[in-house]
Amino acid sequence: MTNATDLLHRLTSLLGPAAVITEGADLEPYAVDWRRLFPGKPACVVRPSNAQQVARIVQICREAGVAIVPQGGNTGLAGGAVPDATGTQVVLSLNRMAAIRSVDPVGLTIEAEAGCILKIAQDAAAAAGRLLPISLAAEGSATIGGVVAANAGGVNVLRYGMTRSLVLGLEVVLPDGTIAHGLRKLRKDNAGYDWKQLFIGSEGTLGIVTAAVLRLVPRPKHSVTALLSVADPAAALRLLELAQDELGDQISAFELISATSMQLVARHAGLKAPIAEGEWFVLIEAASSLAGLREAAETMLGAAFEQEIALDGVIAESGAQASQLWALREHVTESEAREGKSVKHDVSVPLTEVPRFLIEAGEALAAGAPGTRVNAFGHLGDGNIHYNVLVDANHDAAHVNRIVHDVVAAFGGSISAEHGIGQYRVGELARYRAAPEMELARTIKRALDPDNRLNPGKVLSA
Amino acid sequence: MTNATDLLHRLTSLLGPAAVITEGADLEPYAVDWRRLFPGKPACVVRPSNAQQVARIVQICREAGVAIVPQGGNTGLAGGAVPDATGTQVVLSLNRMAAIRSVDPVGLTIEAEAGCILKIAQDAAAAAGRLLPISLAAEGSATIGGVVAANAGGVNVLRYGMTRSLVLGLEVVLPDGTIAHGLRKLRKDNAGYDWKQLFIGSEGTLGIVTAAVLRLVPRPKHSVTALLSVADPAAALRLLELAQDELGDQISAFELISATSMQLVARHAGLKAPIAEGEWFVLIEAASSLAGLREAAETMLGAAFEQEIALDGVIAESGAQASQLWALREHVTESEAREGKSVKHDVSVPLTEVPRFLIEAGEALAAGAPGTRVNAFGHLGDGNIHYNVLVDANHDAAHVNRIVHDVVAAFGGSISAEHGIGQYRVGELARYRAAPEMELARTIKRALDPDNRLNPGKVLSA
Repeated sequence: MTNATDLLHRLTSLLGPAAVITEGADLEPYAVDWRRLFPGKPACVVRPSNAQQVARIVQICREAGVAIVPQGGNTGLAGGAVPDATGTQVVLSLNRMAAIRSVDPVGLTIEAEAGCILKIAQDAAAAAGRLLPISLAAEGSATIGGVVAANAGGVNVLRYGMTRSLVLGLEVVLPDGTIAHGLRKLRKDNAGYDWKQLFIGSEGTLGIVTAAVLRLVPRPKHSVTALLSVADPAAALRLLELAQDELGDQISAFELISATSMQLVARHAGLKAPIAEGEWFVLIEAASSLAGLREAAETMLGAAFEQEIALDGVIAESGAQASQLWALREHVTESEAREGKSVKHDVSVPLTEVPRFLIEAGEALAAGAPGTRVNAFGHLGDGNIHYNVLVDANHDAAHVNRIVHDVVAAFGGSISAEHGIGQYRVGELARYRAAPEMELARTIKRALDPDNRLNPGKVLSA
Repeated sequence: MTNATDLLHRLTSLLGPAAVITEGADLEPYAVDWRRLFPGKPACVVRPSNAQQVARIVQICREAGVAIVPQGGNTGLAGGAVPDATGTQVVLSLNRMAAIRSVDPVGLTIEAEAGCILKIAQDAAAAAGRLLPISLAAEGSATIGGVVAANAGGVNVLRYGMTRSLVLGLEVVLPDGTIAHGLRKLRKDNAGYDWKQLFIGSEGTLGIVTAAVLRLVPRPKHSVTALLSVADPAAALRLLELAQDELGDQISAFELISATSMQLVARHAGLKAPIAEGEWFVLIEAASSLAGLREAAETMLGAAFEQEIALDGVIAESGAQASQLWALREHVTESEAREGKSVKHDVSVPLTEVPRFLIEAGEALAAGAPGTRVNAFGHLGDGNIHYNVLVDANHDAAHVNRIVHDVVAAFGGSISAEHGIGQYRVGELARYRAAPEMELARTIKRALDPDNRLNPGKVLSA
């Protein structure tokens, strides 16, 4: 192993001094995640400007026996993009590689470098009259490379799928320093192994995404937003079935919100649902290029009343009203934070199991962690519930995690529906995934990164 | 290595004599593909009835040092599911594992064993009021496991994606005989590596798919079919843009048909387009749960005439008329076969490059293989062209392949858009894919199947 000075010298020779950060204050934004939950200490931060430089950095670090932590916008929720505290890891930031290389409105593709901010890519698609259907709270900072590496979810998943389903091509620097050029713009390609799948959602542990071709979709012309109250999650499922019948695959959001969530929003954000009280609420959005959307939504609402599924409901009459309905949903997290301390869970179960899951998780918490309150809300249409538990100082977060995740596991669910594993859930993943699956993951990791130099300790323990 | 008799004895002990086929005539359907292009000779055929038996077979063959060729409906077009001619390979047929385990019309999932016929799964989805949107010519024989292993395409790709985008969960027997249980019914799951992606489209070379959970979609209530004639493929692209604007993501097919294809259909199937002659034709289908589809199609057609994109065009007035329009497209392959010998190519290029590809491939053939005629048709909306070349006895198929695939490669295209590599295109894949991609594929293969016992010689050479 060469020493740290020699490593810095080689990296600076390659990139120039401006692209190698070594000073404490300048390191800070790269050293810790934005929620400041996972503070780390990098040896340095390197900021390459092209894939060839990324490849050379990987080779240099490999020769030095030093680990690399790839980083995009550093907006992750699981600490997957920050270094550990040893001061030995090199953070490789993609933020200088931010070009949008092409937008094809008819071929429905966008090619961008890894460091391109998601919002900028969205805007480029919009300027061409098309939609890049990845939308999430951090879109003003998150990068294309990070979104791919995390297989990001967001609010469009119900209709357009996770990021994985939108990736047509990737360029990836492998742990051995070679570049796999796969920036194809093909919607169909069954020629050999689809190796790019390995790098989507593996959080930078198998390779460094340096550029991507993503699929665009036509931009819907019409949209409709409705808020309904229902007696329980089982009624919400019946409503989903009605919505599927009437709106088909034009449903873009089907959000479940508990009365507790609504009460928090009323208390802390001063917002109130414009419909009669209920135990549960459903926010539905659909969008289409076709007229006839609103009529279909009205048919759905009528049927929901007639079949006594909905207790009350409203369809937004304007974009402003639609925004008011969405504001209720969007203020849940912030209102929860104002209420006090909470233990969060980003879980999914088969979506028709959501009602039973909510009952059983509630019972398990009442028995195992008395005094907690549940703030449940989320993407019912995806089976993804943000199952947050309001706690006081007496409650142990790990104990609450265990109770909730045990119930998730009993339903064949996932302990991380969209946020990934990072460093945050490594132990829990190992606990809940069966041995053959974990061994298969380790086999893949060992094959691509035998020396465990790329984002070690993330997703899998060493 | 134990001898062949001992192997047969062990397999028969495990499965019973009825599930081990050793006789010549009974072996035949498993030994050769349905087009009879890739005749092989198996040591025997085993027909397990559950995943545990599959795992035991893999262990037994591993101990005996014998290779396994997994087989579903044996409907592949690239010889990926048949054994070689050595008489040493064991064909593992999944056709006794054919159960549909569950259909969830609200959760939009179907779980089926690998040997379940695609058509039967489609029917089960339809009986629940939902759609399994994988549709292909061989659907009456192809199996779920084969469709997953091949990442099958078909006529719904434009709207719903390849099979990969519909796979939610897999159960796979690995080359070491362990079973990876991943039959989750989750629409969102970012907990660890999504290892199932490795087994989709890798044609049984990395593991044996024994069951799958596939995503269903709402069944559209309305559909519209139109046939238009245009001057050239560039005009067809302009038409696609119009269709995207008016019909959005409700377009389910956008098929390009050359005048040559139409002439073949007229000559050999006696079918004629009900619109004025043109050099090229486009068949468009859209389907939706919403009303307003036909109106949008009429707006599109009006704009196509106004902007002088379409020369002539018709929208089907009934299901029968729609079927007549589709019959033109569906008879192209058969009419081509009646015309004479042809060399087929299942290629894709970035879809906006299709016009230039057609010109350059045509010029390359005129120069390099004079006397050939091009019969081009296919899924323009996916950039996937069936570029078939009518030849006579003087033309060398490999030479024609080379000319066409060189042009495909120059456009960053794929030499196998949907049919896979199997044993048919192994050499060509190695020729056209860059070294780092091939090495990455070999790394994956070696990691999972270090002794090369699972479908050896398919996709990658040994």
